[in-house]
Amino acid sequence: MRQNGNARILVLGGDGFCGWPTALYLSRQGYAVTIVDNFSRRLIDEELGVEPLTPIESIGQRIQCWWEMTGLNIGLHRLDLACDYDPLVELIAETRPAAIVHFAEQRAAPYSMKSSRHKRYTVSNNINATNNLLAAVVDAGVDTHVVHLGTMGVYGYGSAGMKIPEGYLDVEIPLENGQRVSQQILYPTNPGSIYHLTKSQDQLLFAYYNKNDGVRVTDLHQGIVWGTQTAETSLDERLINRFDYDGDYGTVLNRFLMQAATGHELTVHGTGGQTRAFIHISDTVRCIQLAIDSPPAAGERVRIMNQMTETHRVRDLAKMIADASGAKVAFVDNPRNEAAENELFVENDSLCNLGLKPTFLAQGLMEEISEVAGKYAHRCNPDLIPCRSYWCARKNQESSLGEGIGIDTEDSAEAPHLRQVLGRAQNLIGPTSS
Amino acid sequence: MRQNGNARILVLGGDGFCGWPTALYLSRQGYAVTIVDNFSRRLIDEELGVEPLTPIESIGQRIQCWWEMTGLNIGLHRLDLACDYDPLVELIAETRPAAIVHFAEQRAAPYSMKSSRHKRYTVSNNINATNNLLAAVVDAGVDTHVVHLGTMGVYGYGSAGMKIPEGYLDVEIPLENGQRVSQQILYPTNPGSIYHLTKSQDQLLFAYYNKNDGVRVTDLHQGIVWGTQTAETSLDERLINRFDYDGDYGTVLNRFLMQAATGHELTVHGTGGQTRAFIHISDTVRCIQLAIDSPPAAGERVRIMNQMTETHRVRDLAKMIADASGAKVAFVDNPRNEAAENELFVENDSLCNLGLKPTFLAQGLMEEISEVAGKYAHRCNPDLIPCRSYWCARKNQESSLGEGIGIDTEDSAEAPHLRQVLGRAQNLIGPTSS
Repeated sequence: MRQNGNARILVLGGDGFCGWPTALYLSRQGYAVTIVDNFSRRLIDEELGVEPLTPIESIGQRIQCWWEMTGLNIGLHRLDLACDYDPLVELIAETRPAAIVHFAEQRAAPYSMKSSRHKRYTVSNNINATNNLLAAVVDAGVDTHVVHLGTMGVYGYGSAGMKIPEGYLDVEIPLENGQRVSQQILYPTNPGSIYHLTKSQDQLLFAYYNKNDGVRVTDLHQGIVWGTQTAETSLDERLINRFDYDGDYGTVLNRFLMQAATGHELTVHGTGGQTRAFIHISDTVRCIQLAIDSPPAAGERVRIMNQMTETHRVRDLAKMIADASGAKVAFVDNPRNEAAENELFVENDSLCNLGLKPTFLAQGLMEEISEVAGKYAHRCNPDLIPCRSYWCARKNQESSLGEGIGIDTEDSAEAPHLRQVLGRAQNLIGPTSS
Repeated sequence: MRQNGNARILVLGGDGFCGWPTALYLSRQGYAVTIVDNFSRRLIDEELGVEPLTPIESIGQRIQCWWEMTGLNIGLHRLDLACDYDPLVELIAETRPAAIVHFAEQRAAPYSMKSSRHKRYTVSNNINATNNLLAAVVDAGVDTHVVHLGTMGVYGYGSAGMKIPEGYLDVEIPLENGQRVSQQILYPTNPGSIYHLTKSQDQLLFAYYNKNDGVRVTDLHQGIVWGTQTAETSLDERLINRFDYDGDYGTVLNRFLMQAATGHELTVHGTGGQTRAFIHISDTVRCIQLAIDSPPAAGERVRIMNQMTETHRVRDLAKMIADASGAKVAFVDNPRNEAAENELFVENDSLCNLGLKPTFLAQGLMEEISEVAGKYAHRCNPDLIPCRSYWCARKNQESSLGEGIGIDTEDSAEAPHLRQVLGRAQNLIGPTSS
């Protein structure tokens, strides 16, 4: 085990899908880890009436188990990053963390598009969370390195024909006198959902606080994460990571896996020609450490690295899983407002140069099928797998009429806790009394 | 008087400095105008312990007077755009406005930089306001044209050597094969304060809702507005527009005018080499109508027009006013984190081509000096004129130590209503209990 001088790391959103394995990994690497979370992800499970496929424990039991298995302590601080500003400043000022890893945002594109309430919650939560964090780092007077989980989705899924660079694009600007001047600019974003939009807005916040206050920031533009377990979450079943397969939070790969495991057709949206970037959860946690261990220098602009290891077309993913499992593939209407087909070429040299050794789908897929999807298939509710979140109002309406989503109204019997979750969102963005 | 078929226009922020004269102008032009406001600008006056130089009436008296003078009705709807979502949707669905003019944002850069509370309020208020408006237009199912007041400040005040275009920049992207591909991109923003940052984030919201939902948007990137009165606000003193001269909301020109009118030196920040874009308030209201009368077509991308008529260096402005008034010019430290000197060349063909006939400073300045600054100089508190909002933490601290700003703490005796205003901001962004 490497020792990292017990440098303090705050993991915001440390109870979530990426946050939990990151907290364990960093703890095992010798960092003094404190998880900060408001457990909104668990509340949203309640809102949606779903459970992860894997039987996750409460955060208290998770931390207790980690101590039992390793003798390592992980701190816990319950705090809503978008709301509880003063306690955040206190926490940062007291702990003076070497780095703060910021996962604490609503992170599902379909969820962000379910209704105007979900759009508003996602915007308010994510933008206030990031702004509060940056303002608090300045207020606390610490030189903390902020490591943020961004998304490949800010780039959009088309390009002008070049490889998607790591955050900054070289352009030439034609002048009136016929000359050209070269500039490097923040890649012009083209977000595909309200969720992705908030990550584009985050980029502007990072650039601003970096420029005005010298806050050191690494923004990791992550691909779609696949896989469930890391070496640490596999140590004991009580440490198991969440595996989401529902239409809102389940990634395309997880939904295919569950459809295969439960004997259903793999439902591909449109032609399945969408090309996306992927990374295994074990590589995610390693990338976070690589970022922490190589902080930007004082005065350096926001460092952006593409955190992905391979690209695949969605129909090729489906075929891969169909071939391995014997499932059939079915093509269904695409609820999203997106291009039917796209190419995707992405630069990812930075993290590889720092030492990342990728786990590729071809290696890890069979283990995921047997150790997670197959093992817990009895916990799956196949009705939850299809995406029912439509990107445009017209489609939304057809969908409500045709399928009776139901959960977009507060009185839905299927979502008893919806009022609680939306009540929280409502508090956040104020009263709606007329 | 032109008739505009009584097309309904909502003016969000219609009680403010640009909103009020716009509401009157559009009313006189034959539109059916409804003002929507939460009166936050008046509350902030209370927070800061300041009053506009001009004696503005309550909104009720303003509207009553307008009816007495012209026989024209202006509707009024009290509503907090960042909070009161359901009433907003109802209002839009009921009135089905032809256009919604969106002025309803915290609009002062120095105010946005006073403290982390002011940063957080500005981000939460402005981003939630704009997102709510766009989501509500979609929810209400109307094809309303959204006309937004943006700012020249999103561009930053430097360029690569070309004229600043109207929102979109032509670039060439070098490909690996040595070829270049031409693209037109949203001008890469370089906001100079948290306030300007929120307008940059607004741009991403407009682009997204335009792309995904087909919302028609005109974004007007406005220069610094000078002047106080329009033909309509001059009809009766009860209709007078606000004139702000304090360090937070007073523009550089207004502060110079008040210093001249009260026998003080004109305080220029740094070398005064900052070049800025300007427009007279009479031209602002005219531009809004020009935008309303030429809405983007269905499916058209966000239309961006630069709403400014001339540029001046700050020290040249000071000299102009000094020459006219006999005041002296003093150079003081710049509290802002900005370049000492910059050039600024701006394209503004769109609005001129639509028919704008600019009022230039050289024509209107003397009237402003005599009819406003001189006439109401007895209402001026010269202590309020200097800027005391510092852009960086270090400077902020020096400032609190050296000058005792005082109003950044809730117990400040100078700002009895601060708790009320910040309490509202606090409600908006949640509790701070620890």
